[in-house]
Amino acid sequence: VPVLLSADQAPTLSSLLDQANTVGLEYKLAGFDKEPTPTIRGIGSLLSSGPSEVSFLSNPKLIDQVRQCRAAAVILTADAYETLALDRPVVVCGHPYLMYALLAQWFDQHRLRSLPKGIHDTAVVAPSAVIAEGVSIGPHCVIESHVHIGSDSRIGPGTVLGANSRIGADCLLHARVTVYHDVRIGNRCILHSGSVIGADGFGFAPAPQQEQGAWAKIAQVGSVEIGDDVEIGANTTIDRGALENTVIGHGVKLDNQIMVAHNVRIGDHTAIAACVGIAGSTSIGRRCTIAGAAMLSGHIHLADDVHISGGTAITSSIDEPGRYTGVYPFAEHKQWQRNAAVVGQLAQLRRRTRALEKHENSDDPV
Amino acid sequence: VPVLLSADQAPTLSSLLDQANTVGLEYKLAGFDKEPTPTIRGIGSLLSSGPSEVSFLSNPKLIDQVRQCRAAAVILTADAYETLALDRPVVVCGHPYLMYALLAQWFDQHRLRSLPKGIHDTAVVAPSAVIAEGVSIGPHCVIESHVHIGSDSRIGPGTVLGANSRIGADCLLHARVTVYHDVRIGNRCILHSGSVIGADGFGFAPAPQQEQGAWAKIAQVGSVEIGDDVEIGANTTIDRGALENTVIGHGVKLDNQIMVAHNVRIGDHTAIAACVGIAGSTSIGRRCTIAGAAMLSGHIHLADDVHISGGTAITSSIDEPGRYTGVYPFAEHKQWQRNAAVVGQLAQLRRRTRALEKHENSDDPV
Amino acid sequence: VPVLLSADQAPTLSSLLDQANTVGLEYKLAGFDKEPTPTIRGIGSLLSSGPSEVSFLSNPKLIDQVRQCRAAAVILTADAYETLALDRPVVVCGHPYLMYALLAQWFDQHRLRSLPKGIHDTAVVAPSAVIAEGVSIGPHCVIESHVHIGSDSRIGPGTVLGANSRIGADCLLHARVTVYHDVRIGNRCILHSGSVIGADGFGFAPAPQQEQGAWAKIAQVGSVEIGDDVEIGANTTIDRGALENTVIGHGVKLDNQIMVAHNVRIGDHTAIAACVGIAGSTSIGRRCTIAGAAMLSGHIHLADDVHISGGTAITSSIDEPGRYTGVYPFAEHKQWQRNAAVVGQLAQLRRRTRALEKHENSDDPV
Repeated sequence: VPVLLSADQAPTLSSLLDQANTVGLEYKLAGFDKEPTPTIRGIGSLLSSGPSEVSFLSNPKLIDQVRQCRAAAVILTADAYETLALDRPVVVCGHPYLMYALLAQWFDQHRLRSLPKGIHDTAVVAPSAVIAEGVSIGPHCVIESHVHIGSDSRIGPGTVLGANSRIGADCLLHARVTVYHDVRIGNRCILHSGSVIGADGFGFAPAPQQEQGAWAKIAQVGSVEIGDDVEIGANTTIDRGALENTVIGHGVKLDNQIMVAHNVRIGDHTAIAACVGIAGSTSIGRRCTIAGAAMLSGHIHLADDVHISGGTAITSSIDEPGRYTGVYPFAEHKQWQRNAAVVGQLAQLRRRTRALEKHENSDDPV
Repeated sequence: VPVLLSADQAPTLSSLLDQANTVGLEYKLAGFDKEPTPTIRGIGSLLSSGPSEVSFLSNPKLIDQVRQCRAAAVILTADAYETLALDRPVVVCGHPYLMYALLAQWFDQHRLRSLPKGIHDTAVVAPSAVIAEGVSIGPHCVIESHVHIGSDSRIGPGTVLGANSRIGADCLLHARVTVYHDVRIGNRCILHSGSVIGADGFGFAPAPQQEQGAWAKIAQVGSVEIGDDVEIGANTTIDRGALENTVIGHGVKLDNQIMVAHNVRIGDHTAIAACVGIAGSTSIGRRCTIAGAAMLSGHIHLADDVHISGGTAITSSIDEPGRYTGVYPFAEHKQWQRNAAVVGQLAQLRRRTRALEKHENSDDPV
Repeated sequence: VPVLLSADQAPTLSSLLDQANTVGLEYKLAGFDKEPTPTIRGIGSLLSSGPSEVSFLSNPKLIDQVRQCRAAAVILTADAYETLALDRPVVVCGHPYLMYALLAQWFDQHRLRSLPKGIHDTAVVAPSAVIAEGVSIGPHCVIESHVHIGSDSRIGPGTVLGANSRIGADCLLHARVTVYHDVRIGNRCILHSGSVIGADGFGFAPAPQQEQGAWAKIAQVGSVEIGDDVEIGANTTIDRGALENTVIGHGVKLDNQIMVAHNVRIGDHTAIAACVGIAGSTSIGRRCTIAGAAMLSGHIHLADDVHISGGTAITSSIDEPGRYTGVYPFAEHKQWQRNAAVVGQLAQLRRRTRALEKHENSDDPV
């Protein structure tokens, strides 16, 4: 387990819970012998945490590990606490996994607060850029003309914000992010390194008057609009629209190396895992999940609450909530060879079966 | 619709058409009451354009939208104009989609012309680099020794050009592009942010004298050659050759997050959509199209005018023009489970069908 | 063939072999008329090499090309030399492909030695960073607080090393690499441009107290540990662990655009081709190879010496060494349409076959 804080910086458990963003989440401490509660230097799994860490039980299958857990406290549900009937320090809470998330956030924000602040001398900031209070801009950033950056946002080293782009308040752009001109990003967004927002969508018109097969570029005059509380992973790309905007809703979470093509629309709170590609003009509903390496064709629509399995190619619209899958099962290579050969003969195999059925029926003495 | 120009900067329609690069494309205006033609501040779809925009009809299915269209002018074919029999301002043209592309280009180039010019103070340019007239180099660029940059090319912020690389004239490299040493790029190329040209191809020789399973790196001493009028999308990577060069032909268009491995050759005017991977030493003909997330094995050849569907794995050479596909159709998860289980038994199923056929024939009284 | 060295810089073949890192590899020269051996300016294939190059025969199928080869010397096995019975200059060696790799390395290292050294004026290096002897740091790099860089490592332009990260000795980080805080990288590692090491893993807890469908970020407090002799391709991303570290073993080779999710573990000497995605908490054994565009589900385990074919989705653990495959074979589009339609009816087709078999058995007069 990484030690996240030195002993002198570590808060007591009570203080940690007070400071964490637990709005709307009820919890109570139990099993503590005395005040003050122990100081907490980090967070860890049940088996790896020591007496300076807090741990949590979110997967019911691990309940027996709580008995061996050396953590200063374990976050668990009232049910689990009762089942275990253990006299050890705990935080009883209806949503232990969420509570863990909020405590881990506290540790990470503590780290962020210790980073250098202000606008670094080597950053190139256009005079027309509007930089709100509390903004940090790292070394070698480039902030072009008429950019707006909202209060307390942090822009990592080497990041480039194109002309007229707008970043909301309390955003965290890590090192080496690129935002093209005219892109709009909401509040509390996190963009990871290498992400590129607003590059040109892929659009070309055949230009036969130039040469056989030649293409004329369709300049992409739309842009990208990103809501609040969006996270965008490392090396993910979101292209600008051809005429209108590409739109990412509130609370959308995108993992690494995702490709969002021009004029795509993604609904609020949809979460997409790494290596997914979404072709142009496709729209995705709210609260969908798309697992890794899935791909969506262009110009289709996914309803709200649709869940796509990993590696699946979605080639037509989906109107009903539910889970959808389409990966070819793997096998030991030689066995796969034998079966794969038949895939190319399936229509023929069905015909043969039909012929057998007909024959059988015609022979049928009944 | 984004307003692309302020009213005082907007050209009249006639002037816009004169200034756009319409060489070889015939057109005529019709339905305008008076001179001068209206000023045009942007371009949009039929339903979203207002009286300051020009619109276009390229998809015949949308012909009825022209009646409701409020745009200053609609670009359409002579046939469509006749069919509609509308008395409204139009631009009659054999290729409306191409005309739209060229007008959108004009707007984008107007924006580019307004960007800062010259070599920024913070750019690090080697004394031996040869920079032609009219070149712009953005903040925090690094131009290494003996680089050549052709006239009027624009190098975005934070871009790195490795030693001895050559960039042609009228190129646009967006922010944060990386070009490794000795790479050659033609004229009028566009490279998007995060693209990496000339990283080492993936080559290793088993080195059993070091350790079981160890690999010795095969240094990649070839390079990359890119023709004229090539566009390369965000975070696309093109690796340098092992001994000879990786070669990208003229007019090739590559979308985002494409991987072109070492010693690949791509023929003129081939267009490749996002997330495609092309393994080493494969060659692709001219005027091919490869849809998103397809993957090509190494050491194979695709003829001219081959079209690959999205998500398809091409594992052997294709000698004939045509369209090729190979994605497993998706389904509701439970239904997929039932069918997927049978995929692993196809060879057996074929055998069983064959046995039934034999039996039937032997029983056959005829 | 690229000319790698000017005539005055080129070593004799004997000197080249002496200087290359051939430890543990036996070889002998034969067929040279006189001393000194010829000077070598580069390395090439059998058909493209001229009298200033050295070439090699590693693929037995190309043995006839040796007769036409104009290279100053050909590296080949004793068997091949005997079979050919040619009186021409050769380097006889048990592992010609490995010897080629080592000579190509020598040429590349010669090029690297000619690059500028030292810490560039525009690099921003925190006073608390510990930079060993012989380290080069390129223009516009950012080296944050408490970073350690081992001796003779080379950091390319625009690279960012986050606080407390550690880079070993003799590493080569190309331009525009991003290493997040607290990441540890071993000795002799090569990281290509656009790679991002240590971005946040993709972890969220449902936060229904906020809004239906909302997610709370699970801050990723683990990090990334990378062994010695690891190569990481362009735009590849390796995420930091949620609580514990993501771990990459010694000698691992990763191609471009690979995604390694949080808490993945990759064993020593495993090599992974481009565009592979590995989901969270999966562990991969030693000496595995994973071909391009394969994808591995999360929370599974691959044994040592497992080989995965390109494009294959691995959705469950593999306990036995061997080769595993699962791509749907492609076909001409219309033919594919006919067969793909049957895939969705396979369970039904099997049922029909079973019914025929039953019927046949019940009718069977035997």
